[in-house]
Amino acid sequence: MTETPRKRVLSGMQPSGLLHLGNWLGALENWKVLQADYDCFFFVADWHALSTNYENTSRLREFSRELIIDWLAAGIDPARATVFVQSRVPDHAILHLLFSMIIPISWLERNPTYKEKQEEIKERDLATYGFLGYPVLQAADILIYKPDFVPVGKDQLPHLELTRELARRFNSLYRPVFPEPMEHLTKFPKVAGTDGRKMSKSYGNTINLSDPEPVVRQKLKTMVTDPARVRRTDPGNPDVCPVYDFHKIFSPLPVIEQIDRECRTAAIGCIDCKKLVADAIVGRMQPMWDARAELMNKPGQVEEIVAEGSQRAATVAHRTLTEVQEAMNI
Amino acid sequence: MTETPRKRVLSGMQPSGLLHLGNWLGALENWKVLQADYDCFFFVADWHALSTNYENTSRLREFSRELIIDWLAAGIDPARATVFVQSRVPDHAILHLLFSMIIPISWLERNPTYKEKQEEIKERDLATYGFLGYPVLQAADILIYKPDFVPVGKDQLPHLELTRELARRFNSLYRPVFPEPMEHLTKFPKVAGTDGRKMSKSYGNTINLSDPEPVVRQKLKTMVTDPARVRRTDPGNPDVCPVYDFHKIFSPLPVIEQIDRECRTAAIGCIDCKKLVADAIVGRMQPMWDARAELMNKPGQVEEIVAEGSQRAATVAHRTLTEVQEAMNI
Repeated sequence: MTETPRKRVLSGMQPSGLLHLGNWLGALENWKVLQADYDCFFFVADWHALSTNYENTSRLREFSRELIIDWLAAGIDPARATVFVQSRVPDHAILHLLFSMIIPISWLERNPTYKEKQEEIKERDLATYGFLGYPVLQAADILIYKPDFVPVGKDQLPHLELTRELARRFNSLYRPVFPEPMEHLTKFPKVAGTDGRKMSKSYGNTINLSDPEPVVRQKLKTMVTDPARVRRTDPGNPDVCPVYDFHKIFSPLPVIEQIDRECRTAAIGCIDCKKLVADAIVGRMQPMWDARAELMNKPGQVEEIVAEGSQRAATVAHRTLTEVQEAMNI
Repeated sequence: MTETPRKRVLSGMQPSGLLHLGNWLGALENWKVLQADYDCFFFVADWHALSTNYENTSRLREFSRELIIDWLAAGIDPARATVFVQSRVPDHAILHLLFSMIIPISWLERNPTYKEKQEEIKERDLATYGFLGYPVLQAADILIYKPDFVPVGKDQLPHLELTRELARRFNSLYRPVFPEPMEHLTKFPKVAGTDGRKMSKSYGNTINLSDPEPVVRQKLKTMVTDPARVRRTDPGNPDVCPVYDFHKIFSPLPVIEQIDRECRTAAIGCIDCKKLVADAIVGRMQPMWDARAELMNKPGQVEEIVAEGSQRAATVAHRTLTEVQEAMNI
């Protein structure tokens, strides 16, 4: 026990498939930093996944489990952070219901991502009540743990602001129960996929955290480079080469400088350059693979971690819900 | 144990204040008939009450308790029927959340009572997410018990139809979990209040089930009659007299015939006529007062009944929710 309790951080991810290098660098590396200093609650937002994927839930449980494995392999430490699954903490659903009664529809309709996402995902019918209301569920997910900070990217600031507005509305309608969580602004480095576009599951250009070494090396081998460099003897331009972007993230400075120099003069070819980046990436991924292999050897461990984390989360959540129900006279 | 299990009936009431003669004749008398033949689940819809009354919840708990007392005093038998409070069965909130993900907003917007009620209750802001979604909560409340019948008045048929549509949608998206509940059409006799308008809490013209005898007699004494009969010697017209309506409901046939005859000839005055109706009503209410007094003598009994009923309901609800989660892979 320290004298001043650690400040609390809450963050979640939807279980929508295997995590890739982009997720790792954008979110998990940040979580690892946070868990060192904060009382972290990291959760699998499986109910949330239904808001866009209710029509196909066949792999939902599998995805949730894989997500937890990805986290643990990447170094999320259940001894430091509370790792749990949303659907195992029923009080989220109750707070969602109670919040639904006090939130004006106009707050939801003006949510900038509401219309945007509906237009983006044209192939599914998202004109559902739950899709309109997912910021209500999000607010419940957050506020039930009374976190001090929520890590967000800039694009998610409006959601957090809505959560704060809802906290204020509740506090003024009944009694002050919810402190307003602050944002913990997170820079998400742009990670290119193997085709040069942004790494994204929907483009099929990802290197997944669970890919074994040969797959990673193979994916890197076929990765696009500076399109103007056609022959081995053509000089290249690392500034437009996604492989060079990987070097900048994963390689040691001398290698980065070497590539920058030798690519421009055609002193190094793409095959060798990719070999160097593969070595660097494999080096960084090795501890994750080891951790993953260890988890696989103890089949019950993941379930144990989730059960314990969810129990811990449920205890905290229930304390808040009790306050809420007292305040509302339920 | 009978050989064929009793068919199940589900019905609920919002805790919005003391019940009156209109509620008694319209709903409770029907529930008493139903509990003799069906496996009845009767619940206090306290979460529902928030959809229109979220701004003032100060008496919500009190209202819930009073509602149960009214039911028990009126003859609802916890040994035959499962009597419970919605907010004590968290699985309602989970099913509400899951249903929210699959219900198209258009189904809710076309709900005829949505706009109607919003216009009716102008003094409160009902443009909330929860008010739009109350049929979702209603569907969860109903379907989680898989009832065979739901007692409804004609005006509520569209809600029940929406519940059935949602059941069909769930069954076809995932797997058949929900049988479609049938309506049990209930005639609600029109009961006039002491001012001649429909008896309604919002008119302040009610005779409450919890009113003691002197209050009931006093309210009847000042009740409006045929407005054309000003003097004792004026002949009256029972067809337009709300006191006569009470006679038709509560008095024995000879008294009804006597009033019909003697009012028209001014053989009986309003004071005596009201005395007769008061005797009849008091006669019918006496067993309720006795039962109420008995409940008051055993302070813990109401809580015990609610706790036991809610436990029983929670067990049934959880069985359904488990099926739902299996079907959705959560």
